[in-house]
Amino acid sequence: MGQRIAGFPDTVIITEVGPRDGLQSEAEFIPTAQKIALIQSLLDAGLRRFEITSFVSPRAVPQMRDAAEVMAAFRDRDDAHLTALVPNLRGASAAIEAGVDAMVLFASASESHNRKNVNRSRAESLAGFAEIARLAEGSGTALQGAIATAFGCPFEGDVALSAVLDQAKAYRDLGMTHITLGDTTGMATPALVIDWVQALAEALPGVEFALHFHNTRGVGLACAYAGLSQGVRHYESSIGGLGGCPFVPRATGNVATEDLAYFLEESGVETGTDLDRLIEAAALAEHLVGRELPGQIMKAGPRLKTASMDSVRTANG
Amino acid sequence: MGQRIAGFPDTVIITEVGPRDGLQSEAEFIPTAQKIALIQSLLDAGLRRFEITSFVSPRAVPQMRDAAEVMAAFRDRDDAHLTALVPNLRGASAAIEAGVDAMVLFASASESHNRKNVNRSRAESLAGFAEIARLAEGSGTALQGAIATAFGCPFEGDVALSAVLDQAKAYRDLGMTHITLGDTTGMATPALVIDWVQALAEALPGVEFALHFHNTRGVGLACAYAGLSQGVRHYESSIGGLGGCPFVPRATGNVATEDLAYFLEESGVETGTDLDRLIEAAALAEHLVGRELPGQIMKAGPRLKTASMDSVRTANG
Repeated sequence: MGQRIAGFPDTVIITEVGPRDGLQSEAEFIPTAQKIALIQSLLDAGLRRFEITSFVSPRAVPQMRDAAEVMAAFRDRDDAHLTALVPNLRGASAAIEAGVDAMVLFASASESHNRKNVNRSRAESLAGFAEIARLAEGSGTALQGAIATAFGCPFEGDVALSAVLDQAKAYRDLGMTHITLGDTTGMATPALVIDWVQALAEALPGVEFALHFHNTRGVGLACAYAGLSQGVRHYESSIGGLGGCPFVPRATGNVATEDLAYFLEESGVETGTDLDRLIEAAALAEHLVGRELPGQIMKAGPRLKTASMDSVRTANG
Repeated sequence: MGQRIAGFPDTVIITEVGPRDGLQSEAEFIPTAQKIALIQSLLDAGLRRFEITSFVSPRAVPQMRDAAEVMAAFRDRDDAHLTALVPNLRGASAAIEAGVDAMVLFASASESHNRKNVNRSRAESLAGFAEIARLAEGSGTALQGAIATAFGCPFEGDVALSAVLDQAKAYRDLGMTHITLGDTTGMATPALVIDWVQALAEALPGVEFALHFHNTRGVGLACAYAGLSQGVRHYESSIGGLGGCPFVPRATGNVATEDLAYFLEESGVETGTDLDRLIEAAALAEHLVGRELPGQIMKAGPRLKTASMDSVRTANG
């Protein structure tokens, strides 16, 4: 573990979103047993919070049609916190029945993206969340909120901080005390992160904020640095960087969990993870999807893995 | 331009190393005219400092055999600062004759890497630099120093800060007031950067330090963030991320200039560069080497380049 960078928190909780956010955009169905093996390898690497699946229409997102089976494999793991994405009442019922610890409700900070993503206005999304909140009451299942396009919209450009603040307040009023700011298409910058986090912490002092960055423009970990400098303790990432950017074919998506964990541990921040095992899990993820993933540390290995002097050729620095 | 992050400098100088560090490891010779076209496109994008070539044995590094011709194409650009890597007296004579603004002398902070890289002990390298310094005296050509493996050695592991400090002092004693810390194989971490930069600034107050990071383990820009937080104003990078890591086949090497410039400008730091033109130069670099380069922003485009809502398919955030 590295020396702690001044201002950084001493521990961080990483929520692994690969099994849901990462896999859902895969065209080929990943067999349920392989999803379960991947999640098990992530547990073995020390991760304890998962966005494990989503209870959506199997017609809309066929990859997630095994949501109940995936949940069933892990619902008895009392040491793990398992969440699932839920778009509507039907999904919420299924998620409660499946025994998730929390349902994640999501809407975008931009009107166009929300309409494109879920075919509703933002107001309609919030009205739906109120119904889900009534259903959840007394069920023992918590609610979490996710704000997509929180740092910018691929259709509209910049998103107003006021839109994010209003949405977070609406979530809080529905009882959500854990809210994720999602950088859906990699438009976050470190300066925006600092602004947003400061304003949200001031406006909503009882709420825990989580940050979810994409590395689409290379600054995913620099954005995490910015969040850490403000004391933010929750980050979401995806093993190997699973999960592409739907807007640009060659661009990368989610920050890779093992790269984030490496950065954190080398910055003196405890994550409870084992880097070697995260790298193994990333290799498994790469195997499951059958193509190279964008994570870096899985290719280079830990920094103190030394090479033999005979194994390489150098050319002047 | 973004809002300035507290503690960051207001301007940063980027030294583009792609034409030397990036291209030298290409197996296929890049024709001189194409090298010149690439450098011209980088000038058009606003860059003004270049590690433009290296005056080395054409047998050892055939890619750089056109060093004098490349220099000749730009030596009259009085608005550009052109440096070249120089390994010995013969190279130094050629560099002075070619009219470089400064010669870059380089040795590693680790004994094994220096021996592997230039087949000499560190002490032998420094003795050679003293001869070059005598040659340079009165020539009007400045000397700069580069410390390779400044944050770790692929053969030895951690490098002692004292080794870096001693080397920087030896450089300063030879008259070098601009010294680059090279993260040759991507072993720098933000916490190490903060430590090293603070210690060097304290020990050598008159010296300008430049930071050169590799993105081999994903934290290249997080390391730049660390340097910026300490007020460091000089960074080296390579267009498109040209230049691989010689130690790990799939791993990436240099931080991409356009990604660094994007991060800086979005953090309120002036670089004098034009992002659209940097992206064009990165595309040209990709064309010259004939394969995909690791830079991110060249694939995703600037953050406010909006998409049409019909052009994409999304699946729940």
